Amino acid sequence: MIKVGIIGATGYAGSELVRLLLGHKNAQIVWYGSRSYIDKKFASVYGNCFKLVEDVCRDDDLQTLAEEADVIFTATPQGFLAGVLNEEILEKCKVIDLSADYRIRDVAVYEKWYNLEHKSPHLIEKAVYGLSELYREEVKKTRLLANPGCYTTCSILTAYPLVKAGLIDPDTLIIDAKSGTSGAGRGAKVQNLFCEVNENIKAYGVTSHRHTPEIEQELSVAAGREMKISFTPHLVPMNRGILVTEYATLRKKADGSYPTREELFKVYEDCYGKETFIRLLDEGVCPETKWVEGSNYTDINFVIDERVGRVVMMGALDNIVKGAAGQAVQNMNLMFGEDEAEGLRLVPAFP
Amino acid sequence: MIKVGIIGATGYAGSELVRLLLGHKNAQIVWYGSRSYIDKKFASVYGNCFKLVEDVCRDDDLQTLAEEADVIFTATPQGFLAGVLNEEILEKCKVIDLSADYRIRDVAVYEKWYNLEHKSPHLIEKAVYGLSELYREEVKKTRLLANPGCYTTCSILTAYPLVKAGLIDPDTLIIDAKSGTSGAGRGAKVQNLFCEVNENIKAYGVTSHRHTPEIEQELSVAAGREMKISFTPHLVPMNRGILVTEYATLRKKADGSYPTREELFKVYEDCYGKETFIRLLDEGVCPETKWVEGSNYTDINFVIDERVGRVVMMGALDNIVKGAAGQAVQNMNLMFGEDEAEGLRLVPAFP
Amino acid sequence: MIKVGIIGATGYAGSELVRLLLGHKNAQIVWYGSRSYIDKKFASVYGNCFKLVEDVCRDDDLQTLAEEADVIFTATPQGFLAGVLNEEILEKCKVIDLSADYRIRDVAVYEKWYNLEHKSPHLIEKAVYGLSELYREEVKKTRLLANPGCYTTCSILTAYPLVKAGLIDPDTLIIDAKSGTSGAGRGAKVQNLFCEVNENIKAYGVTSHRHTPEIEQELSVAAGREMKISFTPHLVPMNRGILVTEYATLRKKADGSYPTREELFKVYEDCYGKETFIRLLDEGVCPETKWVEGSNYTDINFVIDERVGRVVMMGALDNIVKGAAGQAVQNMNLMFGEDEAEGLRLVPAFP
Amino acid sequence: MIKVGIIGATGYAGSELVRLLLGHKNAQIVWYGSRSYIDKKFASVYGNCFKLVEDVCRDDDLQTLAEEADVIFTATPQGFLAGVLNEEILEKCKVIDLSADYRIRDVAVYEKWYNLEHKSPHLIEKAVYGLSELYREEVKKTRLLANPGCYTTCSILTAYPLVKAGLIDPDTLIIDAKSGTSGAGRGAKVQNLFCEVNENIKAYGVTSHRHTPEIEQELSVAAGREMKISFTPHLVPMNRGILVTEYATLRKKADGSYPTREELFKVYEDCYGKETFIRLLDEGVCPETKWVEGSNYTDINFVIDERVGRVVMMGALDNIVKGAAGQAVQNMNLMFGEDEAEGLRLVPAFP
Repeated sequence: MIKVGIIGATGYAGSELVRLLLGHKNAQIVWYGSRSYIDKKFASVYGNCFKLVEDVCRDDDLQTLAEEADVIFTATPQGFLAGVLNEEILEKCKVIDLSADYRIRDVAVYEKWYNLEHKSPHLIEKAVYGLSELYREEVKKTRLLANPGCYTTCSILTAYPLVKAGLIDPDTLIIDAKSGTSGAGRGAKVQNLFCEVNENIKAYGVTSHRHTPEIEQELSVAAGREMKISFTPHLVPMNRGILVTEYATLRKKADGSYPTREELFKVYEDCYGKETFIRLLDEGVCPETKWVEGSNYTDINFVIDERVGRVVMMGALDNIVKGAAGQAVQNMNLMFGEDEAEGLRLVPAFP
Repeated sequence: MIKVGIIGATGYAGSELVRLLLGHKNAQIVWYGSRSYIDKKFASVYGNCFKLVEDVCRDDDLQTLAEEADVIFTATPQGFLAGVLNEEILEKCKVIDLSADYRIRDVAVYEKWYNLEHKSPHLIEKAVYGLSELYREEVKKTRLLANPGCYTTCSILTAYPLVKAGLIDPDTLIIDAKSGTSGAGRGAKVQNLFCEVNENIKAYGVTSHRHTPEIEQELSVAAGREMKISFTPHLVPMNRGILVTEYATLRKKADGSYPTREELFKVYEDCYGKETFIRLLDEGVCPETKWVEGSNYTDINFVIDERVGRVVMMGALDNIVKGAAGQAVQNMNLMFGEDEAEGLRLVPAFP
Repeated sequence: MIKVGIIGATGYAGSELVRLLLGHKNAQIVWYGSRSYIDKKFASVYGNCFKLVEDVCRDDDLQTLAEEADVIFTATPQGFLAGVLNEEILEKCKVIDLSADYRIRDVAVYEKWYNLEHKSPHLIEKAVYGLSELYREEVKKTRLLANPGCYTTCSILTAYPLVKAGLIDPDTLIIDAKSGTSGAGRGAKVQNLFCEVNENIKAYGVTSHRHTPEIEQELSVAAGREMKISFTPHLVPMNRGILVTEYATLRKKADGSYPTREELFKVYEDCYGKETFIRLLDEGVCPETKWVEGSNYTDINFVIDERVGRVVMMGALDNIVKGAAGQAVQNMNLMFGEDEAEGLRLVPAFP
Repeated sequence: MIKVGIIGATGYAGSELVRLLLGHKNAQIVWYGSRSYIDKKFASVYGNCFKLVEDVCRDDDLQTLAEEADVIFTATPQGFLAGVLNEEILEKCKVIDLSADYRIRDVAVYEKWYNLEHKSPHLIEKAVYGLSELYREEVKKTRLLANPGCYTTCSILTAYPLVKAGLIDPDTLIIDAKSGTSGAGRGAKVQNLFCEVNENIKAYGVTSHRHTPEIEQELSVAAGREMKISFTPHLVPMNRGILVTEYATLRKKADGSYPTREELFKVYEDCYGKETFIRLLDEGVCPETKWVEGSNYTDINFVIDERVGRVVMMGALDNIVKGAAGQAVQNMNLMFGEDEAEGLRLVPAFP
């Protein structure tokens, strides 16, 4: 039985970890960390867990927790973990960080986009970037896992095969992303009130969203050269789900013609054909966030537009499952030699 | 392994049966019946099941199905099952009916409220009313189960203990119910379009909703006398969930005082204290449909209002889980000697 | 041209006053008061007013404002106005208060339900309760108007004719109310976040909501005796709208029969037949909040249920128009001799 | 008084025409055409108009209507008007067509994208494309107005100034559009049911949406050369509103630097500075559909991204006002010499 501690258990990602781990055969939550609700029953904050969780919330004491847990999930604000983590903790237990602290390999890039000083840059190289499908073997061996962002997971998985195969011009990639509101967290802010979000859609963080460098970092690895992208997130009046619509100029084949759907599909199939949690949709079917809700799936498809010489790629996932807590559990499973899908065989709920 | 056939698999209740049974250890769906989508892949109608269900939809041939299945779920329009069911089928397999055909013991009442002629009234007495918590022992033995309505389950469970204990005046019970839109089904009707339902709330079927006699039938049993109630359903702009707010005059005790919260709570606790799927909330906490979404729980609480001499009871459940498919699976488990909670240990998803 | 000052202009009721007054022929807003946004452009807080309002927000200086304005609207927290209002201000300008400070005639009742000390109880008797349709003549003459609450307006208007006519038993009135989320205001609270409200419905303030004594006060006047009611508000995932469903036992006529729909309709017609802003719907049509959205209308209907001897009354209005800012403008029109409907001839928007 | 007939009055665009024209000082609706609801009261179909419209719906008899009306609005399916319109009708009255029949100048393009034979191609040259801000003078003189599509209006207005000024590379324009569900019309289709749309977002019509050639036609005029674009519409769970996010490669200036925000803003300002219904937002403010809801405004802004050499343009409007009925009324005003804003001075409603 894997003993699990959660720091930040009362945020949306943290509470989703609770939901998923309650259904995991070999994991047991031993620490519900929540600075805001110390000594309050977790189930009084998340009524869905009434009668299912009897524990009270505890403080963020990483040192003590490291003694009690086999793995710590940190679903905390940027900079928190970097400020408290050290080798001693990592020797005692594994850490899966849902914040961005160890995702960006170039500390200068992190500090610029997050406008924060990184307090433990020497640990960055110990971290593995936990996009499970792309870094599976590395994930299995690490003690410090940098769990990817929600927009990032969806954006990368959707474009990765075509970028890697050199089928699109890396300088033309544009990612237009749409997210449900749980991505904004549970903080009490006017802009996230029901009446402000409902019946509304808007872009935000245009040209400056923090997930941009993370996407660029990983796609650059795939491309084998530096890539810079346009990334625009939008806030959608729904609780869960991310949809990305990605545009790129298709490279023509040697004979001057465009690759066919079958050719592109094979590229995707070669990458993801054996993946449990990636579904390549049938021709003509557009991914819908509702079809993955509550599950760990990413649904992907694409349309070739010869008229303008582009491919339109689309991907959908649940931002707090595959985009956060679900992928974190998937990584935990890999790190502890469990079946990768344990606790994650949830059928998406519709409607 | 229980072989399951579903008639009406592409309605919302039918597809929820699929979602739940895919997670059931000892059940296997062998027949996805859907007259509207014969020969189409089920997963092309319900994209959430892509890669999870490979079967195509089949016709509603109850005779053939009875040969292949151990149990048939019928999630069909009122009158359908009554028109085709017979003893021969029931000898071959068990039937769990999610329609109203065998819920009402008095066929005249059924025919009046549903404005239909009942084609097999002789089978009504064979049927057991499947409110699992109230008829558990009978459910275990039956071959024909009348699965309760969504409003009904919530309305009855919420009031039952106080009615049974004689603590409220049966002539004063008023049930004001609010339902998500999935309760209206997947039929293409203008009144259920997004733009008609969204940003809107209305009552409907005022004084005439078909779940009224079903509620009255069961509460009359509890009261030991005939009860007539006011029941008003409302359509709420959300997918899932039913909330009932019930009002009744409290009977005073012999000393002229009203019973206390503790006394009423004990009555509820005596009824439901050991139930897996009924949660009696802490004082001051009002049930919220979101806290039970996607799960088989019913959350219940009440407030005493001495100022006006009434008790306000509240209950919440997911209308297509405990209000339909979940309770149907719970009943299947009972009918086949399975663990009652198998396939139903879903933690409610929030948000 | 009526010079208008608004205190609390950046709350939802305040900003709705702005929207309505911008379309009023004879009113001009001279003061956008908002303690939270002093010196910020109003249109930077409410983007809908971009290019339409150039003013910046100002402090809550009632004394200075009284010199500049003919009428002050206060859309402020309970207790604010009672703490600063005095005769001197009232001599200089009229005041329309959207808070509860002067609605309750019995100061002890106010202090108990609002848990506040009333700082200017001597002004209560100067105030007129501004349910325009019921107190039109008094409204015309007053300098201090207590604008009714949103739940209150809807609850009273719906039941008033039958209570007044003595057709229902006053001891049996139960009001089950459902409100859009704008009624909760624009404060940054976790419980009003999009993800907490969306896909959810719950009751709140059960047996203790502050609008209860206000409803009782006015219906008691109509009944000619003290009335106590059950009132239960619910939070609905929509921006605007209140729907009330009200239950009461019908009194039989001398011959032992129940009154007919025609008889009850005539009672409503006699009360409201000439009212611009009250619409008595056709038989069989249930009020929907969407049909009154953005407008000053209240839609009302009822159904007789002889089976249980009750009448079910239903009313719908837009909580920030007729339930707040719209009725406030209607009262301003009466107080200044304007056409009662000026600025309020908005056709409800659908969808 | 302009006598107005509406064909297709019970669709969402048609009923919005009713809402707007009820507030127009010099227009009077004399014909509510609706083939589906002949002889039914219009207000029984659109309850918002109860007590405001007493008329019953009539058939689609264009010949008779042309005798009674000064102008006919057709909010009808593609191909309808082209099948019945002729010079005789146009001599008797003016026609404002909200369908696509006369928008596309090249009949072959129309027939290809709409998969329809055009029945009156000779009338196309008589039609003026009614993007009011761009074709104001032509609109004033025409008798046949082709009212633009909703996506089209938003897409064109947002990019037009930069395309016209030659500041972006016309081959790089990508338009990612998001629409509320009223754009899908009031037809009873499963895909538009509340439960299918709510809590969901998806792309549709990818690379093949019918508004594409209309956008290309008008932007090509602006560019002075043929333009082909990527256009992807998305369905958003809200009633009203369109948001477009547009990407294009910025052309560098002669000195190799990118134009500044001030320079681009001036280009927009030169185009739209005097327009009543176009609002150029302040730096850093992203358009939100909620800020224009119910009004005829289009809000526009842009962000320069030197990092990737692109400009991100954003535009928002209400799809059934400026995207349909509002612009149609604006055009009617121009065609009849009325104040262009008459009936359209609606302040956007928030929330």
